[in-house]
Amino acid sequence: MAAQNLTAGDLESILEFTKSLAWKAGALILEGSEAIQAAGAEGESNVGEKKNSVDLVTEYDVRVEQLVQSELRSKYPTFKFIGEESYSSGVQEPLTDEPTFCVDPIDGTTNFVHGFPFACISIGLIYERRPTLGVIYNPFLDHLYSGVKGQGSHLTRGFNPPRRLPLANPKQLPTLNQAVIGVEWGSDRCETTISAKSTSFSRLAGDPEKGVAGGRMAHSLRSMGSAALNYSMVAQGGLDIYWEIGCWPWDVCAGIVIAEEAGGLVTGSHEAFEATKNTDQFGVVTEEILTGRKYLVIRGIGNTPSETGREAQKRLIEDFYKTVIDVAPN
Amino acid sequence: MAAQNLTAGDLESILEFTKSLAWKAGALILEGSEAIQAAGAEGESNVGEKKNSVDLVTEYDVRVEQLVQSELRSKYPTFKFIGEESYSSGVQEPLTDEPTFCVDPIDGTTNFVHGFPFACISIGLIYERRPTLGVIYNPFLDHLYSGVKGQGSHLTRGFNPPRRLPLANPKQLPTLNQAVIGVEWGSDRCETTISAKSTSFSRLAGDPEKGVAGGRMAHSLRSMGSAALNYSMVAQGGLDIYWEIGCWPWDVCAGIVIAEEAGGLVTGSHEAFEATKNTDQFGVVTEEILTGRKYLVIRGIGNTPSETGREAQKRLIEDFYKTVIDVAPN
Repeated sequence: MAAQNLTAGDLESILEFTKSLAWKAGALILEGSEAIQAAGAEGESNVGEKKNSVDLVTEYDVRVEQLVQSELRSKYPTFKFIGEESYSSGVQEPLTDEPTFCVDPIDGTTNFVHGFPFACISIGLIYERRPTLGVIYNPFLDHLYSGVKGQGSHLTRGFNPPRRLPLANPKQLPTLNQAVIGVEWGSDRCETTISAKSTSFSRLAGDPEKGVAGGRMAHSLRSMGSAALNYSMVAQGGLDIYWEIGCWPWDVCAGIVIAEEAGGLVTGSHEAFEATKNTDQFGVVTEEILTGRKYLVIRGIGNTPSETGREAQKRLIEDFYKTVIDVAPN
Repeated sequence: MAAQNLTAGDLESILEFTKSLAWKAGALILEGSEAIQAAGAEGESNVGEKKNSVDLVTEYDVRVEQLVQSELRSKYPTFKFIGEESYSSGVQEPLTDEPTFCVDPIDGTTNFVHGFPFACISIGLIYERRPTLGVIYNPFLDHLYSGVKGQGSHLTRGFNPPRRLPLANPKQLPTLNQAVIGVEWGSDRCETTISAKSTSFSRLAGDPEKGVAGGRMAHSLRSMGSAALNYSMVAQGGLDIYWEIGCWPWDVCAGIVIAEEAGGLVTGSHEAFEATKNTDQFGVVTEEILTGRKYLVIRGIGNTPSETGREAQKRLIEDFYKTVIDVAPN
């Protein structure tokens, strides 16, 4: 039982607040990216290095995080937080039933640093141990995605009215051959991971009738460089599947709600999928899946006379996991 | 010598006309994509197949082509055309000095069909055998890129005033390690091509200190699925390099002008690069390069005391071509 009960009305009010906050944070992200581009012309002096040069951190990353943390803590002083900061300090407390914010101040940091217009703020809320509310805002395109458990998800572009997601009724998806699949090269570039990824991607793209063993010949593969925006794109219907190993809960928490409320289904690792696929836990993002760092999301699929959309999602994930190679996140 | 002389004023006037036409065609592309999404929910009945299922053609592809062709032919009856239609009919005439439109009615057809918001119309004009004017419009994001030889290139987003490209002064780019690189899986999915691509991508992304032989550990790789929009993104500064084998002149003609006018440099195959890199033809998109189906574009790079931006571009392309594997376009 949760010590604090959140009603549907509470969630609506939290949504409004987090949307306003996301717009504010987005303006700071945009300012930061432009400042970095301008400074970069004189020698990239303010771009730091963390784990390696792929994993960029900037002054603005901290400023956006401080803005979001202070506003959320001030408005919701009893809510908990999980995020990069608490994980890296090594004192991460186990998840509780309490409302818990799960925030990535800048998702798509490499894009942010380079001015590739796919970076965003991602604000998720976990409640009773499940992702329950999510807001993702890409200030470069002025696209705001939002979702609340049981209340649907929406995309607001600029000053246009919000549109319910997915943008069109869910299409069929007979096989992986018809799919556009989001994948990422990520920041772990060791031989084991790069080799597993390139083999997996080659099988997804390759033509089995032209020599690629196990090839699924998907319509194509896309890489935009932001986990949160990949979830949003699945919710929208522009991607059919997005698979990644190595993300953290704050990269995906908001996106999970937005995708699920658009009819999408989220699962974890191959193992987690196999353990749940024939149970009533299939499609439930448990704490184990949320923190498991292996995620797969598939968009909503329409029912046919012979198969429900949920059955099609399961069948396609089964085939997907037969195709790709699992590796340990680094 | 050209039979028709185009002045700077003529090019300005052609630019205004092609921009208007691109907006009109964009509206039709958007209508088409939404119609396909809606129809898709009832069984993808209006999606045809051409070379294979990756290479989608739709009714709207034809309608957009007809719109653009008829408006351009009516306004400029003496101008020639090269495009997919003339190539596939097998009666392609050699390039002349005459003004010649080179148009892709829908670039990013897979995206268009799936509602992934990166498809565009690309209108290029070749004059005296060189790409001279380009307009690229993505109606999903309402982004219009344009460029005219000697007159700069611009990005117009929605109702905002045009911004000169690149969006920020050209940054340094010391090595491929700092680069965000655009690559695509394309439509040729045979084993030879897929294997060469996955090896190339793995070397670009992989960490040489963690077992990836020849790894350049680029900041990251991106795949958006539209050659024309990749050129636009290089012009904008969001991608540092874009490399692809298998495109056609109409996929890249407009983008070449837009990228070049933003300080970018375009070359062809490894062989074409080696043949020209130490000549005054380096960076000139000759007919051989334009029709050679192998392209590399690198963004503008700032000068340093020890190296001009042009020298840096050459050095980085040399290293790039040492890294990737060449294959024949299919």
